[in-house]
Amino acid sequence: MKNENRQFRLAARPVGMVKRSDFEFTSTAVPEPGPGQVLVEVQYVSLDPAMRGWMNEGRSYIPPVAIGEVMRAGTAGRVAKSNNDRFAVGDYVAGWGGVQDFVISDGKDITKVDPRLAPLPVFLGTLGMPGMTAYFGLLEVGKPKAGETVVVSGAAGAVGTVVGQVAKIKGCRVVGIAGGPEKCRWLVEDLGFDAAIDYKSEDVNKALREHCPKGVDVYFDNVGGDILDAALARMARNGRIVICGAISQYNNTTPVKGPSNYLSLLVNRASMTGMVVMDYTEKFGEAVREMAGWMKAGKLKTREEIVEGLETFPETLLMLFKGENTGKLLIKVGDA
Amino acid sequence: MKNENRQFRLAARPVGMVKRSDFEFTSTAVPEPGPGQVLVEVQYVSLDPAMRGWMNEGRSYIPPVAIGEVMRAGTAGRVAKSNNDRFAVGDYVAGWGGVQDFVISDGKDITKVDPRLAPLPVFLGTLGMPGMTAYFGLLEVGKPKAGETVVVSGAAGAVGTVVGQVAKIKGCRVVGIAGGPEKCRWLVEDLGFDAAIDYKSEDVNKALREHCPKGVDVYFDNVGGDILDAALARMARNGRIVICGAISQYNNTTPVKGPSNYLSLLVNRASMTGMVVMDYTEKFGEAVREMAGWMKAGKLKTREEIVEGLETFPETLLMLFKGENTGKLLIKVGDA
Repeated sequence: MKNENRQFRLAARPVGMVKRSDFEFTSTAVPEPGPGQVLVEVQYVSLDPAMRGWMNEGRSYIPPVAIGEVMRAGTAGRVAKSNNDRFAVGDYVAGWGGVQDFVISDGKDITKVDPRLAPLPVFLGTLGMPGMTAYFGLLEVGKPKAGETVVVSGAAGAVGTVVGQVAKIKGCRVVGIAGGPEKCRWLVEDLGFDAAIDYKSEDVNKALREHCPKGVDVYFDNVGGDILDAALARMARNGRIVICGAISQYNNTTPVKGPSNYLSLLVNRASMTGMVVMDYTEKFGEAVREMAGWMKAGKLKTREEIVEGLETFPETLLMLFKGENTGKLLIKVGDA
Repeated sequence: MKNENRQFRLAARPVGMVKRSDFEFTSTAVPEPGPGQVLVEVQYVSLDPAMRGWMNEGRSYIPPVAIGEVMRAGTAGRVAKSNNDRFAVGDYVAGWGGVQDFVISDGKDITKVDPRLAPLPVFLGTLGMPGMTAYFGLLEVGKPKAGETVVVSGAAGAVGTVVGQVAKIKGCRVVGIAGGPEKCRWLVEDLGFDAAIDYKSEDVNKALREHCPKGVDVYFDNVGGDILDAALARMARNGRIVICGAISQYNNTTPVKGPSNYLSLLVNRASMTGMVVMDYTEKFGEAVREMAGWMKAGKLKTREEIVEGLETFPETLLMLFKGENTGKLLIKVGDA
């Protein structure tokens, strides 16, 4: 076992794009679990767009990370010591361990995961928060019906890949929006999307007209900005927009770009609804079982992009905002 | 009976604020009804913010008014000649007669109204399209529950006054946003709103914090722009925004201002949904009966601002966009 606990602590509230100096990279002794507690050795750290929002001050769906606090992050790891009857040494667990080598838990904020069901990284992706976000956002907010057209932005990301594949399983026509020809080819050829739009080289408005001749019934938005406006302009009567995120706006130093085309909601009797995955916690177990079944049946494919070394955290986080990852982005913590 | 038919025809698609030269004011012979037709003498012309949208080119919920066509408008009048068994001379009817003295109808696009139920102008206001818009937008889209906080903008207008009063009838706390101290006093003292915010002299963000301590459960938006953003910032968990109109944006020469605070939908799991009153046509009769009952019981007050003379049409229409009317704005057609 490692004999130190490296930690990334928030040092400053970022202005614009996150940078290494917004964190302090420190090291401390490995903590000892007290009565009822377990010591978890973090093996994988999840990188998620939402992390950018947690670094800002102000009211949101959860409190911001305080200056000096270990940066909040989803993690998967292994129980290294246990004073809790519910966990044995060697158990694999997922939770909110933060960007560090070790975390102490009272057992309430960690969940055992079964490594026979899927490799550990998948529990931070398709069978973790991003997968749950996709599943509940699409099915409970977007409510797609077979035969409808579903469009998803950030389509090659951890949430987008699941949204598109679940929509295909539900019998929808699926169009993904992603950056670059590689991602677009992968969405169509490997994941079975009906079409993919490369926003970096194509006119998204024109491409949506072409690929969604009957309009867009469900638009699952991970990006905001101009792409949200393009989707609004193509909404079908009674269409539903799921607001899951707005990665294009998170590092702005100017105000968020509001969707100029929002009056399309009126013209098309459409709706735009926000969702936060934590609201569905009670149903996660059921969703994981269904998604694992789809994975086993080959209907739901997962892909992880794994970067080695906890020390790479600030630069690895930036990959999200530069659109450099395909599938779920993770750090494999590795040795000190 | 008048011996000419004065008409306002659309002469140009307005750029920015509507002006008299966007219309042609012409006169023609009074038309003769053919078999199955009736001749309606228009007595009142309804002035509605939506008219500005109908003057623009492009896809919307109804086709635009064509250049050279009589300007579309809701009207109330009296059957002057009839070749249709369903209508007798002297019957009062409401419909889409347009900005003119006379209109020919086959009887399918006009509805008999009962002048004993309410004065004729009320059938263009509280018991007409604006009232129906308020009733169905609030109850079927906003779905307020007793005890919730409902905020309405354009609160002293034809739609807003009904939204606020119906919300009070349903047991809600009601806050209106309107322009000027007179309108605000009227909303609170005469219509029973719990509070009114004068957007011309108050900081709307601050006033909403004060008057909506538990947040806004339903926001009924008639105006868009900065006021929509202020309401978004105050939405309660699971709040609903009804997008009915955006009068602040209709005469823009720049793109519509999209709501910068739309990510409040995510944080608060809130929704923003567009509505068009025509979707509820089949239920109008039922709503009119219920609203007439409330009027009779003194729970629902109506107010009309009536300008004399068809010839005033372009300037009277502008009163809407300058916020000069209180209650339902109408033209009493008068003599040629």
